[in-house]
Amino acid sequence: MSKNGISRREFFESSAAAGLALAATGATSKLAAQEKDKPVRVGFIGVGSRGTVLLRLALLVEGVEIPAICDIDESHLSRAQRLVERRGQPTPEGYSRGPEDYRRMVERDDLDCVICATPWAWHTPMMVATLEAGKYGGVEVPAAGSVEECWQLVEASERTGVPCMMLENYCYFRNVMLALNLLDLGLFGDPVHSQVGYQKDERMLGIGPDGEMDFYSKVRSQANGNLYPTHALGPAAWLMNVNRADRFSYMVSMSSRSKQLGDYAVEKFGKDHPAAKIKFSQGDVNTTLIRTEQGRTVTLYYDTQSPRPWDPILRFQTSKGIFMGSFEKIYVEGLSEKPLTWEDSAGYYEKYEHPLWKKFGAMEVSGLGRGVSDFLAVHQFIEAVRRKSLTPLDVYDAVSWSVITPLSKQSVANKSAAVDFPDFTRGKWKEERKRIYYDV
Amino acid sequence: MSKNGISRREFFESSAAAGLALAATGATSKLAAQEKDKPVRVGFIGVGSRGTVLLRLALLVEGVEIPAICDIDESHLSRAQRLVERRGQPTPEGYSRGPEDYRRMVERDDLDCVICATPWAWHTPMMVATLEAGKYGGVEVPAAGSVEECWQLVEASERTGVPCMMLENYCYFRNVMLALNLLDLGLFGDPVHSQVGYQKDERMLGIGPDGEMDFYSKVRSQANGNLYPTHALGPAAWLMNVNRADRFSYMVSMSSRSKQLGDYAVEKFGKDHPAAKIKFSQGDVNTTLIRTEQGRTVTLYYDTQSPRPWDPILRFQTSKGIFMGSFEKIYVEGLSEKPLTWEDSAGYYEKYEHPLWKKFGAMEVSGLGRGVSDFLAVHQFIEAVRRKSLTPLDVYDAVSWSVITPLSKQSVANKSAAVDFPDFTRGKWKEERKRIYYDV
Repeated sequence: MSKNGISRREFFESSAAAGLALAATGATSKLAAQEKDKPVRVGFIGVGSRGTVLLRLALLVEGVEIPAICDIDESHLSRAQRLVERRGQPTPEGYSRGPEDYRRMVERDDLDCVICATPWAWHTPMMVATLEAGKYGGVEVPAAGSVEECWQLVEASERTGVPCMMLENYCYFRNVMLALNLLDLGLFGDPVHSQVGYQKDERMLGIGPDGEMDFYSKVRSQANGNLYPTHALGPAAWLMNVNRADRFSYMVSMSSRSKQLGDYAVEKFGKDHPAAKIKFSQGDVNTTLIRTEQGRTVTLYYDTQSPRPWDPILRFQTSKGIFMGSFEKIYVEGLSEKPLTWEDSAGYYEKYEHPLWKKFGAMEVSGLGRGVSDFLAVHQFIEAVRRKSLTPLDVYDAVSWSVITPLSKQSVANKSAAVDFPDFTRGKWKEERKRIYYDV
Repeated sequence: MSKNGISRREFFESSAAAGLALAATGATSKLAAQEKDKPVRVGFIGVGSRGTVLLRLALLVEGVEIPAICDIDESHLSRAQRLVERRGQPTPEGYSRGPEDYRRMVERDDLDCVICATPWAWHTPMMVATLEAGKYGGVEVPAAGSVEECWQLVEASERTGVPCMMLENYCYFRNVMLALNLLDLGLFGDPVHSQVGYQKDERMLGIGPDGEMDFYSKVRSQANGNLYPTHALGPAAWLMNVNRADRFSYMVSMSSRSKQLGDYAVEKFGKDHPAAKIKFSQGDVNTTLIRTEQGRTVTLYYDTQSPRPWDPILRFQTSKGIFMGSFEKIYVEGLSEKPLTWEDSAGYYEKYEHPLWKKFGAMEVSGLGRGVSDFLAVHQFIEAVRRKSLTPLDVYDAVSWSVITPLSKQSVANKSAAVDFPDFTRGKWKEERKRIYYDV
């Protein structure tokens, strides 16, 4: 085990398979001057609203070059090219000859990695092509939409030896990282349970101002499960070190009736409008329970069809206490002043702020998605590329968080019957590994 | 449907079966002077610590007499007799000739009701005997420990026509009643989901100061499920009007590994101590999902083996918003100032305090259990007895909340397989009824 917790054996196995000129060190804190000076060359696929945020963030990372951008929408492409130029870089070559044009781009020999922020259905094929071309893959959530796609992604990464990271910004939230740091410092014991949720009023999403349905609305009329699991589950899985000496074993899922979205359409457009006649399948509140191989549990919500404030919950519970991240309340045996009494977490940030937040927390990223956490997800990916090292979140994380969608649909359809997680690691989860943070 | 929501048909059916001289009115706000003047005569079975709290609370209700008390512990009995005397009443007759002596007491013809606060295993047989003797039954939680006991209780109440109420004090919490009032006022829409928990560090319970095991410890060494569901579930079920046009349909349950209680015993007594060698079965955090016939859902925690502040959660979610009772945060569409933004609930208490809390909230009950909510549970039971009316929480509530324990054990033992709730109401749940509050 090297200093930063990457197993050397795994590192070299990965390197060899990759056929890449990998640096023979896993050290995080020092980087040889010549590597630091070498630019990281990033290609982008999909520069709509989210892709543009990611592009802006990547341009904030020191030593990043953007030689190529792909988008079938030429106005998006052009806007993105201007953004790069404004940073004093040459105009990136544009790829917009149709939906398969990304294949030409990923074959370029002047790219180290590709970041993909296209509609969900394109994530897996674009990442597979990226990895096959020997480039690190950074993908927006979810990484895959079906069990089959999960395997395609895993097999592409294993076959090529090239890492793939899902850019899960919620993992880099300040309060999530506070909990991670307490764990890393040995002050928070052993994880027992997490409760997390993607909880946000998204009734208006998927039905346009004139009642027209987009893909999200179509999904919700046909599916019933957890349609967007990774923002919520990522932090819980990372806290529990899932895929690093533990893994998700099985899950059950339950949906309440589907009513709110239909009521909303009637209220907004009137009962005779086509939008009011859509038969939605998606239950209003979906709840999933997950059990890990080591007997830890997760409660995972998907709650987007009711009026409610945004709330990811972020309940992290360990042998030493509990952190209610959303409401910033914490109790840690040995640290808290009064026995069994909530404290505001403010004092904990003063004492136990995560090193990444200490270093980057004050930077100016306002207006860009969720700010610093978004930046950190992109930054950590790019730093792994720079070192030609493992990514902090790996392909097994990407698929075991994304696979909730098909598995939950299956469980809901079968009266909440237990569904087993495929072991995407094929037993490699048993190896203990520490969490990775680059450039701290 | 009468003014207070009791169905007249049901009321008279119940009256007729009971053979009791029932008042021919369901009105809550007025009570004939002669009834008000008549004392309510209460017998007690079990006056240990909890029973004594209930006795003290009953003595705070106007016009209550205590003619008889049963306890096999003569010091408990004697203490209870002194308490009644101090209120200026005659010494209650004591019953302490052995564990079956309660049978003599419930046969007395000068009792209107019996309140039972003995160890769990005695609740059902004592209540069945009470109902058979024609007295209203008020029972501490849980009302029953097995599916079989649930049916015994239901059948005794139906056969005799005498109501049985589980004295679930959590239902009368101030914040629970705020939510109920918002619903009753039509401001909070239709219930969709609740999340509740019995969450309290009880590692010390069941292992005495010298490591000796009591019944709770023995239960936790043999069982794995939700061992104490009613405090948490009661408020959720009441909010959703379960058993009043809805009912619990099926549930799944999942436990994390059992580790914390064993670790605690080792830490506290050393690894060679007998307490450290107990093999506990109970998982550290148990989570249960329940789905109702109408498609509402509940997430129910039992979390007593980890260091944590007490937290019943009390998440109540409706078509109009969400109330996080524990942290006193609320959002209600149409009432909240800013869209999709939490408010402190303080202002809601000013405007929408429940009438029962308005009337009794300021009374002096400090030191008695949870105070006003404890008082209200006892008070509402006694007021129902005084009127010879239906109890606010009925025998179907008692059993459908208590039955979680055996059903959750079954689900946990079968990899979280779905378990159906028996329909204890035999179809009567379909009748819509309003919530009952007496003497407001």
